[in-house]
Amino acid sequence: MDDRPLLVTMGDACGIGPETIVKAFADGEAADCLVIGDPGVLRRAARAAGLHLAMARVESPGDRAQVPPGALGVLSPPDMPAGLADLPWGRVQALGGQAAALCIRHAVHCLLQGQGRAVVTAPLHKEALAAAGIGYPGHTEMLQALATPAGGVMPPVRMMLANGELRVVLVSIHVSLRRAVDLVGFDAVLQTVRIAHDAAAAWGQPRPRIAVAGLNPHAGEGGLFGDEELRFIAPAIEAARRLGIDARGPFAPDTVFMRARNAPGHPGEFDLVVAMTHDHGLIPVKYLGVEQGVNVTLGLPFVRTSPDHGTAFDIAGSGRADASSLKAALRMARQLSAAR
Amino acid sequence: MDDRPLLVTMGDACGIGPETIVKAFADGEAADCLVIGDPGVLRRAARAAGLHLAMARVESPGDRAQVPPGALGVLSPPDMPAGLADLPWGRVQALGGQAAALCIRHAVHCLLQGQGRAVVTAPLHKEALAAAGIGYPGHTEMLQALATPAGGVMPPVRMMLANGELRVVLVSIHVSLRRAVDLVGFDAVLQTVRIAHDAAAAWGQPRPRIAVAGLNPHAGEGGLFGDEELRFIAPAIEAARRLGIDARGPFAPDTVFMRARNAPGHPGEFDLVVAMTHDHGLIPVKYLGVEQGVNVTLGLPFVRTSPDHGTAFDIAGSGRADASSLKAALRMARQLSAAR
Repeated sequence: MDDRPLLVTMGDACGIGPETIVKAFADGEAADCLVIGDPGVLRRAARAAGLHLAMARVESPGDRAQVPPGALGVLSPPDMPAGLADLPWGRVQALGGQAAALCIRHAVHCLLQGQGRAVVTAPLHKEALAAAGIGYPGHTEMLQALATPAGGVMPPVRMMLANGELRVVLVSIHVSLRRAVDLVGFDAVLQTVRIAHDAAAAWGQPRPRIAVAGLNPHAGEGGLFGDEELRFIAPAIEAARRLGIDARGPFAPDTVFMRARNAPGHPGEFDLVVAMTHDHGLIPVKYLGVEQGVNVTLGLPFVRTSPDHGTAFDIAGSGRADASSLKAALRMARQLSAAR
Repeated sequence: MDDRPLLVTMGDACGIGPETIVKAFADGEAADCLVIGDPGVLRRAARAAGLHLAMARVESPGDRAQVPPGALGVLSPPDMPAGLADLPWGRVQALGGQAAALCIRHAVHCLLQGQGRAVVTAPLHKEALAAAGIGYPGHTEMLQALATPAGGVMPPVRMMLANGELRVVLVSIHVSLRRAVDLVGFDAVLQTVRIAHDAAAAWGQPRPRIAVAGLNPHAGEGGLFGDEELRFIAPAIEAARRLGIDARGPFAPDTVFMRARNAPGHPGEFDLVVAMTHDHGLIPVKYLGVEQGVNVTLGLPFVRTSPDHGTAFDIAGSGRADASSLKAALRMARQLSAAR
């Protein structure tokens, strides 16, 4: 039994992240967590949510055993700016971006020293990060860089979106569909399959059944509607199989997710689906509801999950934030780190 | 109450179409149907399925009232070739293609004379059609041509895929994803929205709420990941709105189908979704199971539905064909033609 805490970064102080954290804790779903964040910000979020919150500050994850039952353990990273709890809700502010980045940096520092089981990141705001002069567009790039040893090569990463019945790994994410088509190549597909396979092995599933979706309707119907399957995807699957990976396909995109769906009375045929585009993968994961969707970064030397929503500045401070996705992210982080 | 029959074309004699028809009838789901087909082929299909089948031949749809209760009404079109019931199962044969085409031709002839409520087409085989020298690649093109008055302009049509909780109309279908991106233009989107709107009006829903999905992740995020939304899709939605159509969007592809999903406890926000690509639209319709998916051709002067599967030559004659999708197609045809 791993008694190291799940590290939860508070995200942007002016968004809904802190509120979702205190709500998850109030619902008994964060007892094994340590928040990397600012106590004042969490206190304000609890007030906004109408919750009484007991907190206990610790100096290092190893001290978490000293947190009394019923209190939320909080670790404030070194050099946190003052006045965070006085920032107006729902606005892009450099201070908010700076604090969010410090929390992530410190969480990775702890993880690389083996002081946490996994990290769950509450949402930050990309513009606030930029306003603070942080040179990373978002969480993923920052985690990737922080996880790289000095002078080392950045690990290639991929996004997985998962819910209770489906786990989908994406070849590309935030690019136009036209560009996504261009990005489908032998190396990109093989690398995605390998990252998915290795991640599953790390979470205790040594030989996952990986379905690789095609790019084109009917997976190209033998070249009739596009040839990326013949030129790139099928050869990448072959190469993966030669590496001992149980990769199969390419399958028609419109039925592979239905076949992989793992629900009561409907055992999935596959453990993971590799999807060629953002929306081929995300449409089925979100179809039955976004609340349970969890974003997982594969390829890092630690487990990282996050809720599948942003800072929701429009409702920040209103007490109306929904903690479902954060709770799902906590559960997923526990599950994926259990075998490490 | 419309007492005209639903016309059901038998499809390829060597595929599973005839078997699904007799099974649907045996299950009491085709009592208001008239099969346009060959009695011998239906009899053989009933034997393969282990069913006793009473049939009554009629010369015209108007004679259907003379079909005794418990018997399946069958109309054999003029010039049907002999020996259809002796063709081997599961093989491409010119005679099968020729007969399938004759049935479709006769069904359209009856429909244009007001002698049927709608047509439900059992699957044909494109290669058999070609072997018979029929100059249409499939059902849709053939129906489009047959529905065009001599010297007239072919009506533009679009494919809708629907199940109990979702109705999706596609801008393009059987082309590569790269080509599908190229096909997203102002005219194509506006025409799709208009066809969807007019079809809904014809089936008794005068002002459907039409959601238009974007093409790119997050519907392009303001041009950051592709500009088709800004250049074509949003202007087409504006133009449709000026025509009095309740079109909205463009919405992020990964959440619009979830929002449109109409299920118990989850009222859909929209009546129809226009999807830019085959798989954006078909992934969510098929996610919960393909058995209930129905293919509907919009833009024809009559209702046409079909099961969402092919001739399944590999299991033809084995008695193992699943009639679920045909039954769903019959129900959908009844529903969509009720207001006509």
